[in-house]
Amino acid sequence: MKAKIPVSVLGATGTVGQKFVRLLADHPWFEIAGLAASEQSAGKTYAEAVRWRESVPIPDAVAKMVVQRAAPPLPGRIVFSAIEAELAGAIEQAFAKAGAFVVTNTKTHRMDPDVPLLVPEVNPAHLRLLERQRKERGWPGGIVANPNCSTAGLVLALAPLHRAFKVEKLFVSTMQAISGAGYPGVASLDIVGNVIPYIGGEEEEKLERETQKILGELKGNAVTSASFPVSTHTSRVPVIDGHTETVSVGFARRVTPDEARAALEGFRAEGKVATLPSTPARPLEVDSRIDRPQPRLDIDRGNGMTVTVGRIRPCPVLDLRMVLLSHNTIRGAAGAAVQNGELLVVEGWLD
Amino acid sequence: MKAKIPVSVLGATGTVGQKFVRLLADHPWFEIAGLAASEQSAGKTYAEAVRWRESVPIPDAVAKMVVQRAAPPLPGRIVFSAIEAELAGAIEQAFAKAGAFVVTNTKTHRMDPDVPLLVPEVNPAHLRLLERQRKERGWPGGIVANPNCSTAGLVLALAPLHRAFKVEKLFVSTMQAISGAGYPGVASLDIVGNVIPYIGGEEEEKLERETQKILGELKGNAVTSASFPVSTHTSRVPVIDGHTETVSVGFARRVTPDEARAALEGFRAEGKVATLPSTPARPLEVDSRIDRPQPRLDIDRGNGMTVTVGRIRPCPVLDLRMVLLSHNTIRGAAGAAVQNGELLVVEGWLD
Amino acid sequence: MKAKIPVSVLGATGTVGQKFVRLLADHPWFEIAGLAASEQSAGKTYAEAVRWRESVPIPDAVAKMVVQRAAPPLPGRIVFSAIEAELAGAIEQAFAKAGAFVVTNTKTHRMDPDVPLLVPEVNPAHLRLLERQRKERGWPGGIVANPNCSTAGLVLALAPLHRAFKVEKLFVSTMQAISGAGYPGVASLDIVGNVIPYIGGEEEEKLERETQKILGELKGNAVTSASFPVSTHTSRVPVIDGHTETVSVGFARRVTPDEARAALEGFRAEGKVATLPSTPARPLEVDSRIDRPQPRLDIDRGNGMTVTVGRIRPCPVLDLRMVLLSHNTIRGAAGAAVQNGELLVVEGWLD
Amino acid sequence: MKAKIPVSVLGATGTVGQKFVRLLADHPWFEIAGLAASEQSAGKTYAEAVRWRESVPIPDAVAKMVVQRAAPPLPGRIVFSAIEAELAGAIEQAFAKAGAFVVTNTKTHRMDPDVPLLVPEVNPAHLRLLERQRKERGWPGGIVANPNCSTAGLVLALAPLHRAFKVEKLFVSTMQAISGAGYPGVASLDIVGNVIPYIGGEEEEKLERETQKILGELKGNAVTSASFPVSTHTSRVPVIDGHTETVSVGFARRVTPDEARAALEGFRAEGKVATLPSTPARPLEVDSRIDRPQPRLDIDRGNGMTVTVGRIRPCPVLDLRMVLLSHNTIRGAAGAAVQNGELLVVEGWLD
Repeated sequence: MKAKIPVSVLGATGTVGQKFVRLLADHPWFEIAGLAASEQSAGKTYAEAVRWRESVPIPDAVAKMVVQRAAPPLPGRIVFSAIEAELAGAIEQAFAKAGAFVVTNTKTHRMDPDVPLLVPEVNPAHLRLLERQRKERGWPGGIVANPNCSTAGLVLALAPLHRAFKVEKLFVSTMQAISGAGYPGVASLDIVGNVIPYIGGEEEEKLERETQKILGELKGNAVTSASFPVSTHTSRVPVIDGHTETVSVGFARRVTPDEARAALEGFRAEGKVATLPSTPARPLEVDSRIDRPQPRLDIDRGNGMTVTVGRIRPCPVLDLRMVLLSHNTIRGAAGAAVQNGELLVVEGWLD
Repeated sequence: MKAKIPVSVLGATGTVGQKFVRLLADHPWFEIAGLAASEQSAGKTYAEAVRWRESVPIPDAVAKMVVQRAAPPLPGRIVFSAIEAELAGAIEQAFAKAGAFVVTNTKTHRMDPDVPLLVPEVNPAHLRLLERQRKERGWPGGIVANPNCSTAGLVLALAPLHRAFKVEKLFVSTMQAISGAGYPGVASLDIVGNVIPYIGGEEEEKLERETQKILGELKGNAVTSASFPVSTHTSRVPVIDGHTETVSVGFARRVTPDEARAALEGFRAEGKVATLPSTPARPLEVDSRIDRPQPRLDIDRGNGMTVTVGRIRPCPVLDLRMVLLSHNTIRGAAGAAVQNGELLVVEGWLD
Repeated sequence: MKAKIPVSVLGATGTVGQKFVRLLADHPWFEIAGLAASEQSAGKTYAEAVRWRESVPIPDAVAKMVVQRAAPPLPGRIVFSAIEAELAGAIEQAFAKAGAFVVTNTKTHRMDPDVPLLVPEVNPAHLRLLERQRKERGWPGGIVANPNCSTAGLVLALAPLHRAFKVEKLFVSTMQAISGAGYPGVASLDIVGNVIPYIGGEEEEKLERETQKILGELKGNAVTSASFPVSTHTSRVPVIDGHTETVSVGFARRVTPDEARAALEGFRAEGKVATLPSTPARPLEVDSRIDRPQPRLDIDRGNGMTVTVGRIRPCPVLDLRMVLLSHNTIRGAAGAAVQNGELLVVEGWLD
Repeated sequence: MKAKIPVSVLGATGTVGQKFVRLLADHPWFEIAGLAASEQSAGKTYAEAVRWRESVPIPDAVAKMVVQRAAPPLPGRIVFSAIEAELAGAIEQAFAKAGAFVVTNTKTHRMDPDVPLLVPEVNPAHLRLLERQRKERGWPGGIVANPNCSTAGLVLALAPLHRAFKVEKLFVSTMQAISGAGYPGVASLDIVGNVIPYIGGEEEEKLERETQKILGELKGNAVTSASFPVSTHTSRVPVIDGHTETVSVGFARRVTPDEARAALEGFRAEGKVATLPSTPARPLEVDSRIDRPQPRLDIDRGNGMTVTVGRIRPCPVLDLRMVLLSHNTIRGAAGAAVQNGELLVVEGWLD
């Protein structure tokens, strides 16, 4: 039996940080060796520092660990980051410079031309940007990012359609869960019995440009973002976990619902990606029931890593309408980063 | 002081029926003279028959009225109908045949070519279909319909844009309140903390074809539906009252947000429609705050008859994106029908 | 027609402050002449300074008023206070010293032996403590308090029972609305689909001791708190407005539900209190329907000033069980204070 | 490896029936051999007949099983029943007469003097009533019941306190989840953003008398219900799963919070009950955090079989206040019945 790979977590006390702790606690390859958070938390045990909101107790081994300052070095060569965007630039770069691979859920570096923005089932080849990053920046480590929570589910559902039929136009209207805003996040007076047709932090812009980058083409050491226009509306609804997205897509040719369904159902992770512990057996499931997917019933498929697609039907304006659902704090955040960390391992970056 | 006009309500015990009772109780022109509901309710007082769900008590005068069977005659020449769709065909026609003007919220006759589908601020001229209806059907009365709850708000916001810039393509994704499904309607286990990406009863088809009919052109005695394609996604969210709709529109030419805002803000009811008690001072309000409109804060504008539009911005796929909100049981149901009844009065149909 | 009485509002930008602005905007006796809030707000217009959460727009006249610092002098002799508890001590006293009557919703001075803790229908005579307060403190003005939001409804329902049958033991378990915690207050991740069996700020202690003080006896210039023991459980539930309380009461003798109902239904405001604009025609309503009162249907009775009591039945442990509901930000906060201000007027304290 | 024991489920398509299917699908001792439901469902496969509302898919083996009529014989000697109360009398008796052990969650037979009303950790000896039942009724099988969902959690928390200090008075106010009402159950218009201070079906009476029976004393072949008075208030809140109860208890002598905590924390299942697969390692957990337990965070402890107690503190009227939480469809329904079935096995009733 191989020893586990030690990893650290930056921003470990926040909502995504807690999800990292939960997912890593039982991980077959990784074990938590270091935790870092803000100055106020540093020096306390994790149990003291965190306002734990998961529905299982803090893992025993982690509860007693002492939270450190968010500066290198931290134990292990992989550092999962859920640090605040305003601080992420300097801190994540410092870790990369110090030799760590920063696997980040934070937006700061996502659109850097030399940072891989990865969904392993979709664009694993983009990991090669890391070579350019190391060369240009001269770092012994590096930075790898996963997309925004609302982008993660969308690109998974689009990937097989884009490969088979070439996406030319895209409409998305989201209904996003409150956990996407962190804690305390959305005030209850704002969202109980209500809809807020706006998500702060340039959500719509992120959804547009990150989708284009992930579905973009790698040529040599550069990714050219896909050029199809993306129109997004992002709204907050009183749901705990699970982003629902209504989507209309136009393709290079007319595509029937049956063709689309076949492409979606046939989608599988390929090569080494299929062997990662966080890769679900089916990254996409199509549910043909008239009123699915629904967050309360469908987010836990594939341990929160499977995206569910439903209501596939023709679109009177573009070609195809559908609804998709993904778990925003797993597939859309911590789970995505853990899967990226696993990809770094199998691709030999830690050797 | 003129005597009030006696009116009756069909389907008076349901959710929309109750809203009729509430709106008519204080109406300056109308007074409730008759109430009808199902066989089980007939013979009981209204207070006994109804499971009253409004937040004000049953109006005293109405509470003691005896509920009648849903067959002519009922007092008054105007009969407001919130009767179930399966029963509405025969019953509403019987009333029209017996000389009543049936002002209905039910879908059954909406798409009949000789039935006016009216939003008074938008297409008052369509009322002329009533002449054809009476001629062809030989009825002394007639049937006038208002649109489906999700259509009502949409066509109001589209009307000034269509007039000014000609709509050519339309994409709508709705987030609809539970009151739209009546009572008991949506099970709480289905919607608490959840989104259902589907509304029964062909909601999407209704939203598409009713929008096209209302924005259609009256030539002679026929309405030609507008021909622009409409793509809809309709979802249910845990909101009590208020349908929120994210909308993208393509026009015959590029339209800027400023042009659109000017058209929306300049929109007013015209002619006699402006004098109706239910017509709000401003049928449309534009709210420029980044996170508005919101159901919990904005549905009561204009006593529930004003539609609020927000987040007007360019659309990368079509021309314009925006969000709109309307009160689904007032502007989208009972209030709409009451306003139609008022229009019949000022247009002299009761004389 | 008499000129209106100018008043000011302290803490005008918070949740209760906004409710003050809304209630005072249409008040028949008072008009807002000054607004004060924190240092960051001072100098801005009210519209700029406030994050307005009411469902009607900011009253025009108020929107343009410039917010001042929370220090005397402010216009008018009545100052309604919704200021934070930590600051209230010094600031409210400064205003009283400067000649103003501070009518406060803040907890700071409620239990001071020389401060009247008033519910006008219940203990108007306690206003006489103001004489002692002025004498002992040497202030030209004074401080008058209303109780905590969960206490207000409770003491109204208890008052007629205590008068008629003498309360000897009291159990209360509350289900409190999120608006009671102000804004941003309760995080949505904490309360959507959840119950929190705890309210911060010593809610249970306040509910116990304030109930005893209000139902206490005024002898000479002192109030002796009622001595019956009070046992409380306070919980937060995902309701916007309206505190529901399940109550069991033991009396000096066995009391039947019919006797209790008669006492509750017979309860009326007396003397000058009955003439106050904020005093509802019926401070208490008994609803005999098996599943009432409910926040969503019953909080607006008497413009939010009427408390609804239901489910009156025997108690196997004490004597009587019942459920009560009150509007926590009107009867339990701003409305209560406005009513206290009205009482000061009719009792001649401003002359 | 022993073959599994075949069991059947009555009322398999309802909310509790679905939970039975889910819990039995992975059970180490039992396997589902038969499913029965209403006449409309009989003859269909389970997948066709059920409106599945669990968040995991229907177990494959069960999905294809054909639903049978609810009449003997069904496969296996243990029949778990979640049948409607109106039908349960005749049907459950028919099964017992035909030789089956009916382990029922339905209320119909709970208070029969010869039917054990069991919570295995609390009153396993009551199972002996089965001997009397078989003798008096002459059945080869028998009926064993678990309590109502709100009683299950309460008696677990009371059991160690009653043993140690003797309960003399009890006050309970519940906040119950919507899943307790089955499907479709509570209308969303009734409960979104609301509290209903009433649960149908004589909930309060059941909670009172079942608590007394379970904590009653077995002498010879009869159980004498505990005689302490129980006062209950039962309310519905917008929570999916998990009943929260605020409790005040009076004892034969003054009991401190520390004494109570020690008794609660020391509570363990005894003898054979400790070996049952459904018995959690700790039937009770005490959580000392000020705002716990909370349904959303704490119901899954012990796979839904552990009851969490918090906020233990003195009571000014009786002796002790506390808050408890239990999973209403597991500990309060299907899980409780499965545990009772396990008890029948280890006690040799199937041999």
